[in-house]
Parts: sequence; C-alpha cells; structure tokens
Amino acid sequence: MAILVVGSVAFDSIETPHGKVDHCLGGAATHFALAASYFTPVRVIAVVGRDFTAEHEAVLTRRGIDTQGIERSNGLSFHWTGSYSGHMDVAKTLGTDLNVFETFEPKIPDSYKDSEYLFLANIDPVLQARVRSEMPKVRMVCGDTMNYWIADHAANLAKVLRELDVLLINDGEARMLAGESNTVIAADKVMKMGPKTLVVKHGEYGATAFFSDRSFSNAKLSRPFRAPALPLAEVVDPTGAGDSFAGGFYGYLASQPELTPAVFRTAMFYGGVMGSFAVERFGTERLQNVSRQEIDERFNLFREISHLEHAGV
Amino acid sequence: MAILVVGSVAFDSIETPHGKVDHCLGGAATHFALAASYFTPVRVIAVVGRDFTAEHEAVLTRRGIDTQGIERSNGLSFHWTGSYSGHMDVAKTLGTDLNVFETFEPKIPDSYKDSEYLFLANIDPVLQARVRSEMPKVRMVCGDTMNYWIADHAANLAKVLRELDVLLINDGEARMLAGESNTVIAADKVMKMGPKTLVVKHGEYGATAFFSDRSFSNAKLSRPFRAPALPLAEVVDPTGAGDSFAGGFYGYLASQPELTPAVFRTAMFYGGVMGSFAVERFGTERLQNVSRQEIDERFNLFREISHLEHAGV
Repeated sequence: MAILVVGSVAFDSIETPHGKVDHCLGGAATHFALAASYFTPVRVIAVVGRDFTAEHEAVLTRRGIDTQGIERSNGLSFHWTGSYSGHMDVAKTLGTDLNVFETFEPKIPDSYKDSEYLFLANIDPVLQARVRSEMPKVRMVCGDTMNYWIADHAANLAKVLRELDVLLINDGEARMLAGESNTVIAADKVMKMGPKTLVVKHGEYGATAFFSDRSFSNAKLSRPFRAPALPLAEVVDPTGAGDSFAGGFYGYLASQPELTPAVFRTAMFYGGVMGSFAVERFGTERLQNVSRQEIDERFNLFREISHLEHAGV
Repeated sequence: MAILVVGSVAFDSIETPHGKVDHCLGGAATHFALAASYFTPVRVIAVVGRDFTAEHEAVLTRRGIDTQGIERSNGLSFHWTGSYSGHMDVAKTLGTDLNVFETFEPKIPDSYKDSEYLFLANIDPVLQARVRSEMPKVRMVCGDTMNYWIADHAANLAKVLRELDVLLINDGEARMLAGESNTVIAADKVMKMGPKTLVVKHGEYGATAFFSDRSFSNAKLSRPFRAPALPLAEVVDPTGAGDSFAGGFYGYLASQPELTPAVFRTAMFYGGVMGSFAVERFGTERLQNVSRQEIDERFNLFREISHLEHAGV
C-alpha cells in the first residue's frame, strides 16, 4: 500500500575520503522514497526550487515514485554542504542553505489522500503535525527527528510524538530526548511520550527496535530486536544512510498485509539492506540502480552474518 | 579441554553512576577465567601480592579454576582505579599501580604443560611471546592487546601476532593496529600480520568476527559474523566486559571437539552472554554466581533478539 512521505528534496555537496560531489540530488525524502520504492508505491510532498530539473524529477519517476506533491517554488532548493573524514561516522556540516525550504507549507494533493502509510521525515515538527492532522485516516504513522528539534522545539515535537506508531532516531537522539544515559531506559521513556515502537539506529552497528504493549494489536514482543549492519570494505558516502534504512524498513512494512512481529523483524533487516546499498556510492546513485535480486541476495547475506544456522557452512 | 590463561589478577577501585567499590578482585585473567570456567577447565598464570588473601583465591577455586600458577610476591597486587560516567562507554583511568606486576616473570607449572588452549590476556607482548614459546604443543592460541602496546611496542607485538589463531581487540585498536580507518580493510591487514581470525569487539553493540582462508582447516567462511550484545537496562560496571566476552568465547571453543564455523558462531554468542552478565554487578560478583541454566537462557535470549525466526511470536 502507498506511503506518503513529507520531507526534504534537496541538493548535497559532499566531500569524503573517496571524492567530492557538487549539488547531487539528496534530502531525507529523496533517500527514503528511493529506498521504499523497491517495496511499495511512494508519494512525495516537498518543495524544490528552479534548480530542480526534469532530469532530477526523472530520478524519482523512473522508480515509479509519485512526484505530484513536489511543489516548485521560485528560488533555489535546500542545499546542504558537508564532509566526512577518517572513520566517516560523523558528518561535518559546512553549510545549510534552507532556501525555498524556509517557507515550506506542505500541501497534500487530493490523489494522495488515500495513502495508508505516512512517513514524517526530519522537518519542523509543526509541519509534521500539520500533515499528520490532514491525513486522519492513515493506518500507520512513522517519523524521524533530530537533535535540533529535540533541544529547541520540544513542545512542538511532543505533539508529533503522540501521533507516532514508530519513531526512528539514532542512539544519541534517543538518550537526549529521554534525558537518560541508558538506552533501554531511554527507550521506555520515549515510548511513554507517544511512539508505540522505537527504532534506534546505530550507524555501522545496525539498529535496535524497542517494543511496548501497544506495538502489535495481536501479539507481544517483550524483548528488543537487534538487526545488524553489513561490515563494508568501501563506504563512499554515508549521507542518507539513516533515511535509506527508514525507506527499506517502512517500505517493506507497507507492502505487508499485517503488522506482525515477524514482519517487523524482517523490515528491520530490509532497512539495513537499503542503508548498506546507499553508502556504496555518492548521493542516491546506488539507490537508483539496485535490483530486486540484489536486494534479496543482500537480505540473505544479512541473515548469514547474524544467524547461528544458515545455508552456508 | 583445559585453557591456560596468562594475564593480570588484580584489584580494581571503581566508581560508576551506580556506586563505588574499593579494591574488588579484578584483572583480565580473573574475568576471563571466571567466564571460561562455566565451559571448560581453566588454569591461571599471574602474580599477586600479599593483599591477595585465601578468600580472593577461593573466588577462583570455587569455580574449579586451577590457581597453582598464581605466584605470590612480597608486595602489593596490581591495582587499577577508574571511573565511568554518563553513558559509561569509556573508562577514565585515575590510577594504575603495577606493583608486583611490574617485575612479573610468568612461570608455567609442570601440571599446566598439557593445556591445549592458550589465552594471552593483555600484558606486555614480550611476556606473551615467552609463554607462547614455552607451550609449543598447544592446539590453539588466542590473545588480546591494547592501544599502549600497539603504539609503543609494535615490534614485540608483531612477534606475538604471528603466533595467534585468534586476536580479540576492539574497533579502535583494530584500526590503529592496521593504520586504516575502514574496519573491514583493517581486519584484512591485521590478519596478514598473523592472526588467522580477528574478533573485533564493539562494546554495547556486540562483536564481529572476520575470517581468513586459514580460519578453519576443513571449511571456509567468506563473510564476517556479527554477534549482538544484549541491550541492558542496568549496566552497573562495564569493567572486564571484554575479558568476560573472551572467556565465554574461548571457554566454549575449548569445550568443543572441533573448530567449525558453527562452533565459532556459537562461541561468539556465548562471549556476548558472559559479557552481559559481567556488567550487571561490580567487579566479578555476577560472574561468580551465574548458573549454567541462566547462561543457556540468556543464550536463547541472544538468539531471540537477533534471529528472524525464533520460538517466540
């Protein structure tokens, strides 16, 4: 079933030990949509400037992504400049030009209104809440946020958290949001703020899902679930890995008839799979061209590197 | 089959957000031996001072650990003072009093000479190499080291590395040893220095084993294997977690008739299991009193939190 994603479609200028790219297509909604598109239909709400060309749009439409909700504004698109060095686990932001994103007012096309799955990518929680309120009938709401909103927009963020089925954030954000240094206790506190389930992303170490009594309607998982990440010999560009994880994860969930613990665990693996592809090339290059066969082969690889018994020796 | 471990038996004074202990029994060989003792006979070579009492010795002998190789010297035992704060992922060393350890000359009792498994805990590589050379017939050699030896005793360490079947170190140490920021490439470089197999410990995120063509005599694992750690709501004291991982890992290996990929994977899980027990109480308290049933229950829990299919829902 279709996912509606609201978030940034942007340009990134990135330097890593493997090279440098200028103004490549990026943004949370872009990475998310491309990763999710291998599993389910995706519709995007975003705003772009006049620098967003037909070629950029074709990157999305070639993957069957609905771009009707991408508004064109008379200015430049959101542009992020950053670099990575050494072990590349931390991005150094060199510039953030919001441009047309600064006055972004999400508008939901009528044709999007029947979307059953909503993903609120990392944007101002005021906008996240507005989109959510305009989609009252969605079956599931999943969202992301970041330290900036947690620190300085807590009241607005609190409203969004109450609406979430699943919140996806990283370790530091989870602990910051809860004001608690232990991740397990932080997860409990965060889920008491609203999210039924919390997925904590660990970068190169994978991700952990924490469940509450409200996570599943017909089942209960009392233990967390930990999905691995793939140790990669070449990480070209980590930008968008977390959004790609979210796309693979939520795309798979939305493709399944029912949310069960087994479906959730599998979705966590597909999240890792799409994150692992994303970092192999600059920008969205790899996410544009991966095949379903490669995805399934890598899924099996994730199983092989983490399961006691598997098809190999 | 019996493991001979050479390393520190020491006292630790530790402060964490959960409290403070003064001069509790610690040291790499102690944590390792206690964790391994649940799987196989263990023999310890170390030196202690007059502050090491019959009660301290009983902590080891109650677990069936052979203490004949623990030399008594007329001085004080090695004493480490440290603290942890916040997320407790990094120890702050406040004091390192080597005491009798400064002039440690490992002596191998005759009754230890038939040990088939050797573990070289983190001590001066000159001593590691000497013990190894005096045990020419062992079936397997596994070892640990740390940043201090990597940085300032590289030539001595290189001799030890050539003798190792398995090297267990953490992420930062693996990258430092290889002079390479990517962990996968670093692992290859480290294995070219000698170790047939490299186990990289990730603290709260588990551990990854990297294999070479020499890892198994009758099989080949071309992919790494990633074992999870258990998300714990209460980490009382992380001291010794890595040595406890090593003890559970190597203790299980030594208990098995043959080294196969399946045995290795299972050993990685038992390593995580023993590490997760170790941090639940200060010092070695938990490792002294865990039951085999608790160990097996937790092993199943490790499987549950990491496997797509399991006995639960």
